[in-house]
Amino acid sequence: MDKMWLQYPELHKELEAVLYIMKENTKCKDKKIENSILDLINSGGKMLRPAFTLISSRFGEYNEERARALAAVIEMMHMATLVHDDVIDDSKLRRGQETIQSKYGKDYAVYIGDFLFCVCFKILASNSSLQSIKVDSKSMSRICLGEVEQLNTRFKTQVSVKDYLSRISGKTAELFSLSLYIGAAEAGCSEKVNRLLWNIGHNIGMAFQIIDDVLDYTSAKSYIGKPAASDIKQGIFTIPIIYALLKDKGSLKDIISKDDYSDYDIANIIFLVNELGGIEKSRELAKKYTDKAYKLINKLPENKYKIVLKEVCETLLNRSY
Amino acid sequence: MDKMWLQYPELHKELEAVLYIMKENTKCKDKKIENSILDLINSGGKMLRPAFTLISSRFGEYNEERARALAAVIEMMHMATLVHDDVIDDSKLRRGQETIQSKYGKDYAVYIGDFLFCVCFKILASNSSLQSIKVDSKSMSRICLGEVEQLNTRFKTQVSVKDYLSRISGKTAELFSLSLYIGAAEAGCSEKVNRLLWNIGHNIGMAFQIIDDVLDYTSAKSYIGKPAASDIKQGIFTIPIIYALLKDKGSLKDIISKDDYSDYDIANIIFLVNELGGIEKSRELAKKYTDKAYKLINKLPENKYKIVLKEVCETLLNRSY
Repeated sequence: MDKMWLQYPELHKELEAVLYIMKENTKCKDKKIENSILDLINSGGKMLRPAFTLISSRFGEYNEERARALAAVIEMMHMATLVHDDVIDDSKLRRGQETIQSKYGKDYAVYIGDFLFCVCFKILASNSSLQSIKVDSKSMSRICLGEVEQLNTRFKTQVSVKDYLSRISGKTAELFSLSLYIGAAEAGCSEKVNRLLWNIGHNIGMAFQIIDDVLDYTSAKSYIGKPAASDIKQGIFTIPIIYALLKDKGSLKDIISKDDYSDYDIANIIFLVNELGGIEKSRELAKKYTDKAYKLINKLPENKYKIVLKEVCETLLNRSY
Repeated sequence: MDKMWLQYPELHKELEAVLYIMKENTKCKDKKIENSILDLINSGGKMLRPAFTLISSRFGEYNEERARALAAVIEMMHMATLVHDDVIDDSKLRRGQETIQSKYGKDYAVYIGDFLFCVCFKILASNSSLQSIKVDSKSMSRICLGEVEQLNTRFKTQVSVKDYLSRISGKTAELFSLSLYIGAAEAGCSEKVNRLLWNIGHNIGMAFQIIDDVLDYTSAKSYIGKPAASDIKQGIFTIPIIYALLKDKGSLKDIISKDDYSDYDIANIIFLVNELGGIEKSRELAKKYTDKAYKLINKLPENKYKIVLKEVCETLLNRSY
């Protein structure tokens, strides 16, 4: 899990318990499935989303068992989407380790993702209300639609900022919203607080994905655990390149219109995206979403977890991994 | 939908309403997804599982709206598994029509299956109890495990009858059990009746899959809507060949041990499976499961739908499509 949680010992301990619940629910008669999911759990995800669920639970009547179970569900939903995304992207690496689809084949990966979804709903049925299951399943269907939007715009060089924002709102921000909403809703918070947390999640999620897309251009392989510029290679045009194209006089467009990119092309794309201010403008946009999140966090009832939430926003904005 | 339902006008009308609910819940902003799911709905599945849910609802306090919604969920769950199965099998045809993965690509098919799962849980959250959602998600995870079992035994010529039965119990009979269980459980039937219907579903499902596997050897392409002997080509050894291998003196084993099968090999396999009694013995086994289902149906409370259930069993056992 991310080292930032070490600053919050109580939360860190809770997240350890969440990991334990996840592992317990992974047990099944097929050891290949069990081990592949355990590998993913042990590969050291940030545990951001479950931390948000635990934090938001603290704004209502905190029930330890329920909060932890919900946090486990949120992280396992995230894992299910990762497993299926890797099938689509044909990714070889995730968190610096070989992906399930690469190690066991796409066939397994499809069913392992499905299995994870089922486990999530099984845990939800024991720890959540019908209302939250409804919100949850609606969110998950929006996440699928966000992923499909991404497929639809692949290799389209004319993606607008608006298209991009709509896509990441579905594929990323939705789960951040859900993670903050569900903890509060199931801890009996008012509808106002639930909605506020939903919106905070949206803004944190948007900032998070923008930074992720920036890092795809700026990070070395070892930092983010996947090859640099992996998005471009798959024809996924994210905000840095979208902004760069707005300033481009033709040289960037010429390269990305090619059918296939050489290593030299990729290096050139990265150079031009920087030169044309795509990285800088993207960072500014991420900052805007983070500021919006701060403002909304200020409206939350007084509680020591408000500060944690703000600090996490700050850390996420300035991360390099 | 299957023509057999025309014999039961009340049920036929209900199934039409179920199809309508399915179509309504398919609506989404991505028209590609919506249309691909509509294609599948319109491709004329048998509507067996939703019919079972409607029938079992009649053993309790019948609530039209809820029964239809649950029936829709069961059929959409089935569809979700079909979409993902076609990705794995790389199938070109389903119900005589081009599959989603073949028409739109595997990427879409993965997300379309996921989207269908989410829609199912959304409908369930509005029309079912937490207890049924728990049963439902457990069943779905067992179905995934059954599919994985099938992957694990691919191209293994030493699959035992027991292995086969365990695999089809998960991948097929489980959903038949669920379809009969959930209608009754949500109509407030006693736990005894619910369990009885669960077991009836198991036996019908086992017989159904065995006949399906027999038809893979005996049907011409036009009848079952997929190429004959499609299982063998994928290295899936089903009950007819498993029985045949028990009587084989080497000639069948020699062919199936090959790395690749020519059309001549396939014709030879089909011939030998027949010659060695694999088809006949499989039909006997299907008959045994059907008889077991009859016996259990007799134990159900008196109700005109008992007769429907028996007649459906009979039709399924003797089908040629």
